[in-house]
Amino acid sequence: MRAVRFHGREDIRVDEIEEPICGPGQVKLKGYVSNQIKPAFVGICGSDLHEYLAGPIAVPVNPHRITGDKLPTTLGHEFSGTIEEVGEGVTGLNVGDKVAVNPSLSDGTCGNCEIGRSNSCYNLGFIGYSSRSGGLSDHVSVDKKHVFRLPDSIPLDIGALVEPISVAWHAVSRTPIRKDDAVLVVGAGPIGLAIVQVLKAHGIEEIIVVEISEKRGEFALAFGAAKVLNPAKVDALAEVRALTARGNARGTAVAFETSGVQAGLDLAMSALKVRGTTVLVSLWEKPPTLNAIHFLVGEKHIVGTIGYEDCDFEAVIEALATGKIIPRSMITSKIPMNEVVEKGLKALIHDKEKHVKILIDVSA
Amino acid sequence: MRAVRFHGREDIRVDEIEEPICGPGQVKLKGYVSNQIKPAFVGICGSDLHEYLAGPIAVPVNPHRITGDKLPTTLGHEFSGTIEEVGEGVTGLNVGDKVAVNPSLSDGTCGNCEIGRSNSCYNLGFIGYSSRSGGLSDHVSVDKKHVFRLPDSIPLDIGALVEPISVAWHAVSRTPIRKDDAVLVVGAGPIGLAIVQVLKAHGIEEIIVVEISEKRGEFALAFGAAKVLNPAKVDALAEVRALTARGNARGTAVAFETSGVQAGLDLAMSALKVRGTTVLVSLWEKPPTLNAIHFLVGEKHIVGTIGYEDCDFEAVIEALATGKIIPRSMITSKIPMNEVVEKGLKALIHDKEKHVKILIDVSA
Repeated sequence: MRAVRFHGREDIRVDEIEEPICGPGQVKLKGYVSNQIKPAFVGICGSDLHEYLAGPIAVPVNPHRITGDKLPTTLGHEFSGTIEEVGEGVTGLNVGDKVAVNPSLSDGTCGNCEIGRSNSCYNLGFIGYSSRSGGLSDHVSVDKKHVFRLPDSIPLDIGALVEPISVAWHAVSRTPIRKDDAVLVVGAGPIGLAIVQVLKAHGIEEIIVVEISEKRGEFALAFGAAKVLNPAKVDALAEVRALTARGNARGTAVAFETSGVQAGLDLAMSALKVRGTTVLVSLWEKPPTLNAIHFLVGEKHIVGTIGYEDCDFEAVIEALATGKIIPRSMITSKIPMNEVVEKGLKALIHDKEKHVKILIDVSA
Repeated sequence: MRAVRFHGREDIRVDEIEEPICGPGQVKLKGYVSNQIKPAFVGICGSDLHEYLAGPIAVPVNPHRITGDKLPTTLGHEFSGTIEEVGEGVTGLNVGDKVAVNPSLSDGTCGNCEIGRSNSCYNLGFIGYSSRSGGLSDHVSVDKKHVFRLPDSIPLDIGALVEPISVAWHAVSRTPIRKDDAVLVVGAGPIGLAIVQVLKAHGIEEIIVVEISEKRGEFALAFGAAKVLNPAKVDALAEVRALTARGNARGTAVAFETSGVQAGLDLAMSALKVRGTTVLVSLWEKPPTLNAIHFLVGEKHIVGTIGYEDCDFEAVIEALATGKIIPRSMITSKIPMNEVVEKGLKALIHDKEKHVKILIDVSA
């Protein structure tokens, strides 16, 4: 079968590999294989671009502690699919069920897993980075616990968005946000746009987005941002302060930093009101600095967030099923697997103005 | 009268200045003068050292927005005293009352003051930095609202410690700390030691202190730290993890960073358990960097804290009165005013191993 595998920096190939089996023989994949899913749609994530341009980062060079696998591993961690085979001992799931996949791999035994924080597992891995299994292949076998059934109202392409929207849902859940709060979202890439949608689903109206790309700014408005500021054109900090003025007070209660650049973090911190909270969602290639005096005098907070928990997947599927989140316009392109590099990764790198989420249609 | 005034970097002098008056004429001091206090004991603070070596930082070069005063201003913001004159319209305070002073100056009208966060006032100032009035003088006039009466059981020298202990009390109040939490305190200077005492007053037992000075480490143990680690001699991070191991989990729930150096912040962050909180208490001469990936994966928190609120002063006076905090041994020396530079500031700079808190006895 075909599988898109990471071999090294700027070296991602569509390989022919052996089709995984589902059954007693699966122990060779460290026990997390028991369902056989035919991937339907697979999203390309910002972290896939990091991996392509600067990796291996998430892809293990030495055998991963959970999977035992190492480079080349199969990519694709944002995916939906249809169950084509059910392994021994699996109940409650049937051939033909449509599912989304929570790709995070935890060892279940580390100190963080022990206290219920498996998204911070000491040996955290992902299907689609740390494993021979990944969504970007004709067939993938994953453990039952990774699978979330999609109701009929959620089509498979939308199902591939459950994972990135769950990142946003989890980030929002890590804040003390309230309905009448003013909120800043720095960056309107896929995660920033997903955060806007999740905030709307939580009933928050005063959402200010800062984004340098006009096109992405338009997406943010379409998804419900009250205001989009382009920092190349306006003094974003002054504008946020003016927009959030209440008497002499000013600033947002919460800011989501999704840009991963120093100027974005500085803006998020400066735009907060006293005792406000910045949520770091972005990945950083080098450590940012903190304006400590400003941080202290405003008694501010910074919160870290990583991935999601099962409850986030459940909440997102519910929000999609009930129409609280309607993310279809995030999908800006669908491409076949053999174009993953040229029309997928490279399009997102060189032509990112035009794209939010590119899906690979595995059936094509 | 005598007043210790900051004229510039490494230029602090005992000047003869006019004695302040207490009455109708006091409007010239922008309305924050109405009690006349004879200062008794005045502590030297780490921020006084910053000011001496690297100032002006807190001392205004241009007229301060609240006081209208500028350099040279009178130093001394950690002080107690006896009321020697009561201004017009002041009730509930009498000549002879012993008091501690909350020196923070807020404008009362800024956005943060409006919402009850006057310790984060946009124009924050301090008696003892931003004003002609300061504790390091023979007489000082301050507004009634700055004054907290000391019960008979609290002598005046201990009264001069209310301010720094209130910094610690406020910092502890900014955390989600619980009695059975393991807590790390990085740095055992006066604020670190005050935090240890406040933690004990809150019933917290598992207090680990990291301090490079053996002598200060001994103070930390005497004040109730369960363990002191010298990072020059042991792998402090490995030790904290070993000390806090619970099953496979490890790390402290809260860490207080009082050292103001990068290695201190890195240790505080790394020593936290998942979703733990580091409180930044220290002042920073240059912005620290944040190990963002580590921060994200552990879903950690950072909280800023500045100064104190009136409720912190009240709580500290109560804790001193009931013996929950017995800070006397923090006072390592008492000196007369004319020795403030040589036996005060310079002793703390060059001989800090030996000292925690040096008090200036204004009566001497």
